[in-house]
Amino acid sequence: MSLVVIGTVAFDALETPFGKTDKIIGGAATYIGLSASYSLKPVKLVAVVGDDFPQSDILLLEEHGVDTEGLQIKQGEKSFFWSGKYSNDLNSRETLATELNVLADFDPILPDSYQDCKYLMLGNLTPQIQRLVIQRLVNRPKLIVMDTMNFWMDVALDELKTTIEMVDVLSINDEEARQLSGVHSLVKAAKIIMGMGPKYLIIKKGEHGALLFHKNKVFYAPALPLEEVFDPTGAGDTFAGGFIGYLAATDDISFDNMKRAVIHGSAMASFCVEKFGTERLLNLSQEEIEAREQQFADLVAVVPATAVQNA
Amino acid sequence: MSLVVIGTVAFDALETPFGKTDKIIGGAATYIGLSASYSLKPVKLVAVVGDDFPQSDILLLEEHGVDTEGLQIKQGEKSFFWSGKYSNDLNSRETLATELNVLADFDPILPDSYQDCKYLMLGNLTPQIQRLVIQRLVNRPKLIVMDTMNFWMDVALDELKTTIEMVDVLSINDEEARQLSGVHSLVKAAKIIMGMGPKYLIIKKGEHGALLFHKNKVFYAPALPLEEVFDPTGAGDTFAGGFIGYLAATDDISFDNMKRAVIHGSAMASFCVEKFGTERLLNLSQEEIEAREQQFADLVAVVPATAVQNA
Repeated sequence: MSLVVIGTVAFDALETPFGKTDKIIGGAATYIGLSASYSLKPVKLVAVVGDDFPQSDILLLEEHGVDTEGLQIKQGEKSFFWSGKYSNDLNSRETLATELNVLADFDPILPDSYQDCKYLMLGNLTPQIQRLVIQRLVNRPKLIVMDTMNFWMDVALDELKTTIEMVDVLSINDEEARQLSGVHSLVKAAKIIMGMGPKYLIIKKGEHGALLFHKNKVFYAPALPLEEVFDPTGAGDTFAGGFIGYLAATDDISFDNMKRAVIHGSAMASFCVEKFGTERLLNLSQEEIEAREQQFADLVAVVPATAVQNA
Repeated sequence: MSLVVIGTVAFDALETPFGKTDKIIGGAATYIGLSASYSLKPVKLVAVVGDDFPQSDILLLEEHGVDTEGLQIKQGEKSFFWSGKYSNDLNSRETLATELNVLADFDPILPDSYQDCKYLMLGNLTPQIQRLVIQRLVNRPKLIVMDTMNFWMDVALDELKTTIEMVDVLSINDEEARQLSGVHSLVKAAKIIMGMGPKYLIIKKGEHGALLFHKNKVFYAPALPLEEVFDPTGAGDTFAGGFIGYLAATDDISFDNMKRAVIHGSAMASFCVEKFGTERLLNLSQEEIEAREQQFADLVAVVPATAVQNA
């Protein structure tokens, strides 16, 4: 089923307790696209880069099944650049540099071949641009999933709410859910946020897993306890890409299938953090992915007591 | 199967964003005993109070199946008292007062009728006193579960390690696991701590659930997302009481049964936080407990995809 992804394709420079990188390929749409490509190909990309972006990285995306017809290359301009440094426990990070460059006046143009879009993933970006993509699709997709972050709650809350109202699934982290709803309890926050429009809410809790809410139902996907997290960059985007990729590949948006999609997304994210940047996402096998999904299933598996329970 | 619990029986004065209490019955062994009593009776208590402790509270424990033969009442002395105030998000608390009183020279005397102990729960207390109880049992119990806290890691680390070496299951929270092991990754921390003696390690993560480690196996019991947490006091002890009560009642210490015991303990803890102090633990029905356990099962339940998975 046709999947369109919009988001940033960018350069990142990362520093974690385990080392640092020069400019490497990054951006929400890069992680989403690579992650989703393990579920279905092509993943139709809408993004913008400058002429400093290496042709080899574009080819890399193409090789993984990412359709770059909707990737604009702006001559004479530079690609979006983000640089960050993680704390020793990896639980917080400091932004060292943000250079918008081509993103400053990004106009998301959809090629005609993208108009068959049935599944739309709005990666983290200005809410106005996310909304433009919805408006430029002639037919409303079957499912729209939106990722965003606290930055837009701080600087463009009204715009953000207008876009949130138009989507089916919103994906944010726990602190963002608290900020957006104004309440601390995640159960209450979920009700308030679903009242803003989305029928489904995913609350990402990092090393503590993710919650999926729908009406009065809730599903808890724990994160796999990992021996070592190497670089958390892109984990949330990789989760989102795995989530919508799974749904698009199975073309089933029932709550039961969304649970499976959350587990698949969690498995993909658990790979992402094992190496710097996108490295681990470039060479996964279906066997590795299925084995990791099985680990998630085993993690919470309880064999019901057959005989005596509470005496 | 005979269950012995040692810990504090005390007065607490609590303040949460939802209100405050005068002196009410509290203490680790109180919560553990009440929680375990829903799995089996009697729960044989070893503790000490002063002559200020109301006979009515002792009767309350007796009515719930807590055997108080091992509860010493020190004439002319006062009971242990703790007073604390929780932050608005309930994630941290400030100790307003700690009066050791009778605890200062507590000598844990075991009645002869406790010598049939098969399951021993060492509630949070001076590690020397926890150890004395093990040493005073003629036969080593089938299973010893120990709860402790960061305070003992700060002031009595060597004593603590000596006691930890003697137990089967250690129950601590995530920050305590990091402090005790000296590493941040909980997977690595678990290996280090199990290397100190315990064959099983439970890491409590509050609203994020609990992890059970054994050899190379790990089980993740999520916490039920709650609309409102009223008072977190005693949640960890209630968890521990439910855990060992379930194991003692079923007399099965396989890893599979420990998983079920963790779910049962989590369910008991989820009740505890709904009201002030022990209030919610005083009138639970087996139907309520089973329904809550079912909620925990539903929370992580995934129906396997029957046909098409990843395309």
